[in-house]
This record gives sequence, C-alpha cells and structure tokens, in this order.
Amino acid sequence: MGLHPAVAAVRLGVRRALAGADPGETVVVACSGGADSLALLSATVFEGRKAGLRVIGATVDHGLQEGSAEHAAHVVAQMAQLGVDETASARVQVDPDGIGFEAAARRARYAVLEQLREHFGAVRVLLGHTRDDQAETVLLGLARGSGGRSIAGMRRSFDHYVRPLLDVARADTVAACLAEDIAFWDDPHNSDPGFARVRVRQRVLPVLEDELGPGIAATLARTADQVRADVEALDALAATSYDALADADGLPLSGLGELLPAIATRVLRLAALDAGALDAELFHVHVTALQRLATGAISGEVQLPGHLTAYRDGSHLRFRPTSVAG
Amino acid sequence: MGLHPAVAAVRLGVRRALAGADPGETVVVACSGGADSLALLSATVFEGRKAGLRVIGATVDHGLQEGSAEHAAHVVAQMAQLGVDETASARVQVDPDGIGFEAAARRARYAVLEQLREHFGAVRVLLGHTRDDQAETVLLGLARGSGGRSIAGMRRSFDHYVRPLLDVARADTVAACLAEDIAFWDDPHNSDPGFARVRVRQRVLPVLEDELGPGIAATLARTADQVRADVEALDALAATSYDALADADGLPLSGLGELLPAIATRVLRLAALDAGALDAELFHVHVTALQRLATGAISGEVQLPGHLTAYRDGSHLRFRPTSVAG
Repeated sequence: MGLHPAVAAVRLGVRRALAGADPGETVVVACSGGADSLALLSATVFEGRKAGLRVIGATVDHGLQEGSAEHAAHVVAQMAQLGVDETASARVQVDPDGIGFEAAARRARYAVLEQLREHFGAVRVLLGHTRDDQAETVLLGLARGSGGRSIAGMRRSFDHYVRPLLDVARADTVAACLAEDIAFWDDPHNSDPGFARVRVRQRVLPVLEDELGPGIAATLARTADQVRADVEALDALAATSYDALADADGLPLSGLGELLPAIATRVLRLAALDAGALDAELFHVHVTALQRLATGAISGEVQLPGHLTAYRDGSHLRFRPTSVAG
Repeated sequence: MGLHPAVAAVRLGVRRALAGADPGETVVVACSGGADSLALLSATVFEGRKAGLRVIGATVDHGLQEGSAEHAAHVVAQMAQLGVDETASARVQVDPDGIGFEAAARRARYAVLEQLREHFGAVRVLLGHTRDDQAETVLLGLARGSGGRSIAGMRRSFDHYVRPLLDVARADTVAACLAEDIAFWDDPHNSDPGFARVRVRQRVLPVLEDELGPGIAATLARTADQVRADVEALDALAATSYDALADADGLPLSGLGELLPAIATRVLRLAALDAGALDAELFHVHVTALQRLATGAISGEVQLPGHLTAYRDGSHLRFRPTSVAG
C-alpha cells in the first residue's frame, strides 16, 4: 500500500523544517492533542528517526477547561505510544488581565515551551500551525488594518521555533491522522464563535471560497509570505537608516526628507520608540502625525503614548517627556 | 441650514485633490451618472468656482446596455444643469477578446478620457472611486494572491488622474446627492452577481462587517495605503539596485546574493522583463524559480513566459531565447 498523500505532505513539511539538523540533536514538538499537532508529532517521529534525532513530545495544560489535567495525561500517553523518545507536560496559569484571553494563553504557552526547550537542550521547537491557521491570521490582521505588518501572518520560524505545516491544509492533518489511525481531540474552543478566529474559520472563509473561488486559504497564505518579505526588508532598511541618521540633537529633518515614505515612517516609529513611546499604543495615526510634523504639513507638537511629546527644534525633530500641568 | 456632512466630506476630498491648481486651469470630471461621480461633479463645480478653475464634465458611453446613448445624453444634460463649464460625451467600443469584459471596458474608457483630457488641455482628470471601491479592490486582489502589489488597491493619483473620494464612503456620495437633490442612476451592472466585484460588495463585505466588526471598508482602504507605500518603496529600491547591478554579462550572482530577499526577487523580475519575458504571464512562481536558480538551490535552466530561458553562466545569471526543437 502506498503512502497516503496527506501523510506525505505532512512529512515533507517536517523534513524541510529539520533540514540541517545534526544527528543526536533534540527536537521538541508542541502537541495539543488536535489533529494538526498529532500529525506533526507522528511525522517528526518518522523523520527524526531517519535523521537520528531525539524527539520530545510536549503538551501544555492551560487549566482552562474542566478535565484539562486528564486531557494532558491522555496526550502524554498518546505521544509515548506514537514513539517519541520522551514526553513532557506542563501546567500554566493564564492571566487574561489587560491583554485578553487568547494573548494571555499564548504568552503562558510560549513561556513554558521555552523552559522545556532549555531543559531538554533542544535547538528546535516545532509548532503545528497549518495553512488554514495562516489564512485566518491574515484575515484577522486585515480587520485590524495596521498595514503590511498585520497581514504578514505568522513567521515560518523565529528564534528556536519552526512551523513546518504552514503549507499544509488543516484537512490534510485530519486525513493524515485518519490514515495513521491516530485518534485526535476536537478542542471545543475551536468551535466557540465567541472567538474572532473561529468566526473567520466558520463564516468568513467559506463565504470567500464561495464568492471568489476555491483555494482562498492557499492564496492568503501565499500573500502573507510575500508581504512578510516586504515588511522585513523595509524594517531592516529603516533600522539602518535610523542608525545612520539619528544624532545627538534628534532626527535631522533634511535627511528624513530624502527617505522614501515607507522608510521615513518606519524611521519615525523607531525614533519614537527609542525616545520612550509605548510600542503597543503607538499606532499609524501617531506616525502619520510625526510625518506631517517633520514635513511641515502641521506645526506645533505631537503627543505620543507614553507621555512623550514630539516637536521641531530648528533642523531637527526631537522628543521630550510631556510636561504635566501643575 | 448647515452644510450636510456628506456634502462636506465630498467637498473636502475634492479640495485636497485640487490643492495647487492654478486659476484658469482645466479639470475634467469623469461622470457615469451614478451617485459617486455626480457627487464628485457637484463638489468639483463648487470648489472649482472658488479656485477659478474651468470644470468639464465628461461621460463615456460604453454602448453595452440598451438605451446607453439616451443615458449618456441624460448625464450630459444633468452635468450642464449642475453648472459645469462644458460637457463632453464619447462613445467607445468595448472588445473583451482575450482580456475580459471589465478590463476591456476600463481600457476603452481610459483611452477616451485621455483623448478628452488632451482635447481640453486639462491637467487633472477626477475619478469618482470611493473608499468602498477601494475595499472591494483590496479583497479582489487578496483573492488573486500576488502579494503586496495585488492588495495595494487603487492609487490616489497616477499621471493626470486623481481619485478624490478614496476616503469617502459610497453611502456618503448617495447622501450628498440626496441632500443636494441630485437624481442619480443605479447601474444594473452594479447588482449583477456575475461580476466578482458585485459579489464582494453584496456578500463578502457584509459578512466581514458582521463577523469582524464595523468599519471594515475603512480598515481595508487604510491597509491598502500602507501596503502601497511599501510596494512603491521596494519597487524604487529594486530599480536602483538593478541599474547598479546588471552588466554586459547579465546579473552578477554575488551582488544578487547581498540583496534583501524582497529586493532580490524584484531585481530578478526586472531582469527577466528586460530580457523579454511577458509581464502579464510572469508570475511569482517564475520569480521564485529564478531565485532558486540564482542561489544554487536548483541547477539547470528556468523556462519563462515569452520563450525565454534563464541559466547560470559562471558568475552570472543570464537569459537567452528558448531554442525550439527542430
């Protein structure tokens, strides 16, 4: 019997992600017990064995649903049965204060994954995000509307983390589990329309498919790749420009005026952050105001989040702490 | 009675678009008889009068619907009644062969508008595209999936053409017409679900509004602005890099290797076009293949549309006409 095409697709993604791994190297696979991460785990065991790697299956219990401890224990048993060299389970505390539930869960998850990675001395941690997750991320970013950055989607890799399945359809991870007789878990959160991501998955993407033709998830993921390359290039160029431009008096307006607009706005953003503006609250509207101040389209001062004031001083754009009225 | 806010919004857009116009200058307004272009025309008459401009109303009869000649005559009468200095009506022939109906109509329309512009000695031609048109363009581009370029939307201006209403909601152009007692035309093409744009308007955008929150059209238009600035910057940087890099032997691989990926892919695209590749058929997949050839990820040759072959020759990437098997 031939290899099931879905299993082959998942293994191909993993093989590419593991290219260059040295024999004996340790790889951690983050596994929720869902079809995507179980398919990823199974493929990593297969490919890891061929490459002589040590594969660790790690699951994170967010403690958010009843029976989550039992679920985590079940996933550990399942990972062991699928042939990993070692398993790990960690419980985290999710504190949604201020940043919201999804962001808090993500933060807690990455913190504990990083601890596990260090504990096991792993070079790579594999994450099971699929092409459909990427498409959803792009659409959610589009609704936020903060430019290329917000539609660039998830990175294929960052630091020690790699996403081998960004080219693999979610349906293929389900098909791969079925073909390999792996029982997977349907997280009830994945069908709770209280989450914007679930609404995108269940209501927005199907309408886009119907009205604009099939394959929209693949198209969105491809767009994300290209836009991400664009954003990374401009960010790098802007960082270089900023370093070359900034002097002890601030940002020289003449030099700023010679930059392409897409680089000038990024340099202004970097300058504001360097001066103490709050990253999470520094929006496009602020950067646009800085640009208008720099070009002379507006005069006076621009107030920025983080109690920061931008102003023109002769030939320079400068920043100072916003003075509090006494 | 105060000025209706929708009328004020349309006039503000027009005022900004006419900034810097000299008294006596001629402006052409392209007018279909729909709410958007009639609101634009009325606002241009108002603002043009203040600025001492000569305003020409121009309508194009595509000859595609029964009674289109009568409709054009009606629009001419309406434009005259709204106070333009002169009117023009031109009939065009739409030949959808090879490029499709919408593209053919657009091409014919711009060709005749350009003739009219030259005839009247106009510096600017104003087009009535609204923020909603822009949002639809972004979503249609997203479904094509050719990267930032496809989601950068319509330009605010190009050559002599300006779009003053890209920040104005379509509903505001309707409200402005109602407030000014201007009867407008509902083009039946605008509700024909045979057009992808109509499906985006009637089915996709409402779902996005429902699931991801109101204001999605404004958000999409804002994203388009930022992405367009990014794409224009990278295109400009790539053109400079290409001019600096290309020599008599082709593209030096060493120089290519030093470029950021987003610029390298653009340089490769420019090189392929320069060598005679067909623009309309040169897709991302071709450019990716060129990049893999240049970095040595693949060897051999890459076939490009336009009967062109790319190959490595020592230290250079070169192109030659594809040899035809005898």
